[in-house]
Amino acid sequence: MNTGVCLTIAYDGCDFHGFQAQKGLRCVQSEVQAVAQRICRHDIEVRGASRTDAGVHAEGQVVAFDTTRELAPRRWAQALNRYLPSDIAVKDVRLCDVGYTPRFDAKDKIYRYVFHLGAVRDPLFRHRAWHLGRFIPFEYPDRDQLQGSHHCLDLEAMKEACKLLVGTHDFSAFRAAADTRSDTVRTMLRVDLHEGYLGRSDLLALEVEGTAFMKNMVRILAGTLIAVGRGRMTHAHLASLLVPGANRIHAGETAPPQGLTLLSVRLGRLSSADAQASR
Amino acid sequence: MNTGVCLTIAYDGCDFHGFQAQKGLRCVQSEVQAVAQRICRHDIEVRGASRTDAGVHAEGQVVAFDTTRELAPRRWAQALNRYLPSDIAVKDVRLCDVGYTPRFDAKDKIYRYVFHLGAVRDPLFRHRAWHLGRFIPFEYPDRDQLQGSHHCLDLEAMKEACKLLVGTHDFSAFRAAADTRSDTVRTMLRVDLHEGYLGRSDLLALEVEGTAFMKNMVRILAGTLIAVGRGRMTHAHLASLLVPGANRIHAGETAPPQGLTLLSVRLGRLSSADAQASR
Repeated sequence: MNTGVCLTIAYDGCDFHGFQAQKGLRCVQSEVQAVAQRICRHDIEVRGASRTDAGVHAEGQVVAFDTTRELAPRRWAQALNRYLPSDIAVKDVRLCDVGYTPRFDAKDKIYRYVFHLGAVRDPLFRHRAWHLGRFIPFEYPDRDQLQGSHHCLDLEAMKEACKLLVGTHDFSAFRAAADTRSDTVRTMLRVDLHEGYLGRSDLLALEVEGTAFMKNMVRILAGTLIAVGRGRMTHAHLASLLVPGANRIHAGETAPPQGLTLLSVRLGRLSSADAQASR
Repeated sequence: MNTGVCLTIAYDGCDFHGFQAQKGLRCVQSEVQAVAQRICRHDIEVRGASRTDAGVHAEGQVVAFDTTRELAPRRWAQALNRYLPSDIAVKDVRLCDVGYTPRFDAKDKIYRYVFHLGAVRDPLFRHRAWHLGRFIPFEYPDRDQLQGSHHCLDLEAMKEACKLLVGTHDFSAFRAAADTRSDTVRTMLRVDLHEGYLGRSDLLALEVEGTAFMKNMVRILAGTLIAVGRGRMTHAHLASLLVPGANRIHAGETAPPQGLTLLSVRLGRLSSADAQASR
């Protein structure tokens, strides 16, 4: 292999069984691999920065592969975009060292999770947000008179909870049972809640930036914040989960995948020479 | 029939062959009709305010039907939303006169058309915008050095063109050849171009409000504005098209359907009593 090629890609997760290749299923990794092989004219292996779940989208996933084919970055982008399906696009190409592995080099990642609070589901956001619907406690006065996107999520409590999550904690309660890695300490650099996302009063966006994440972690954080917003979890309870040995069953539910988007991955040095041509 | 029921509905046009029922094809009208029939327990006919094309979306389409079934508006909404597919939702229900026909009662309609100007196609907007790509004339200096969402659409010229369209004109050059109605005079109340739609520098939204529209009219207006923005059509040429007998072939191309959304329909009096219960 002569060179590594590092791609920033975007995809609509709807019609994929996640990033990671699985035999017989349509996955992002295998789609990119098939198209890159067609251009390289030899077998390649695509390595991703994040193994996004089925239904999860990306605006800035990073993947890399090695090849004997030598093309300028912008030619790589043109050739790949010509053959990739309409639900994947290459946004940027840089050259990197042979064997470069974005997953090990990633310095931090940013994810966005979108909640839809409208009373009625929105067909145009069914693949882009978690439709919570209006949450209104039974004891709420004039419950039947509430209009439109009114909801009773306690956003202030949720914002306080976001602050608790920032920093270095043991997140063992915030990962899928299937994730059995022994190192469960992660650092969250920023956990923000934005009201009025896209200028719509019924959309709420959570943005999480961290150095590394475990399986389903952002989705469990999103589900847990909703439990706080609904008054079903106190801040004290949430704080008690951020310690070694805390149990997954005491955190909130796993929010559905369609609300999640991998926004960006910050990389370290792509090559030892560190002389990368940008497209 | 005892009563008319008038629905405000939203849909994702992606997987429909347009609004109007066509035998053997999945259409919005037939989907709503099938679900309403199930609730009414008798045959009904759904009448729409606008016959949106295949791929066109709606945030506020209006439809009406007559029934012997008597339910409160909010019960209608609940029952319909329970059985409608995920790409259609009922947003609001009002009762109306038997035989009420939204198409004849519509006072005005608002449509939005979204253009995507980014250099690379965006998988997450492939069903929501027309990807124009970067339009950069060959004579442009430093053509190869342009970055990101830079484009050479002359937005000022497009905004001037929007002003020309406002008012009452003969729009015979701005309708599909298949539309053969003899009355081709329409009034546009508002034609606005919004840069930075959804907070993104690569999205441009056109909003058109008018008393009535002909087949493909907004899409041809969108295509014509792009011709102006690309410097391929002068304002004088555009003005010369807004007269009786002007020919369709002299207007711009028909913009693709996925960029178009019917935002709202303003209705007159829903019932002679005009005593409508709102949900």
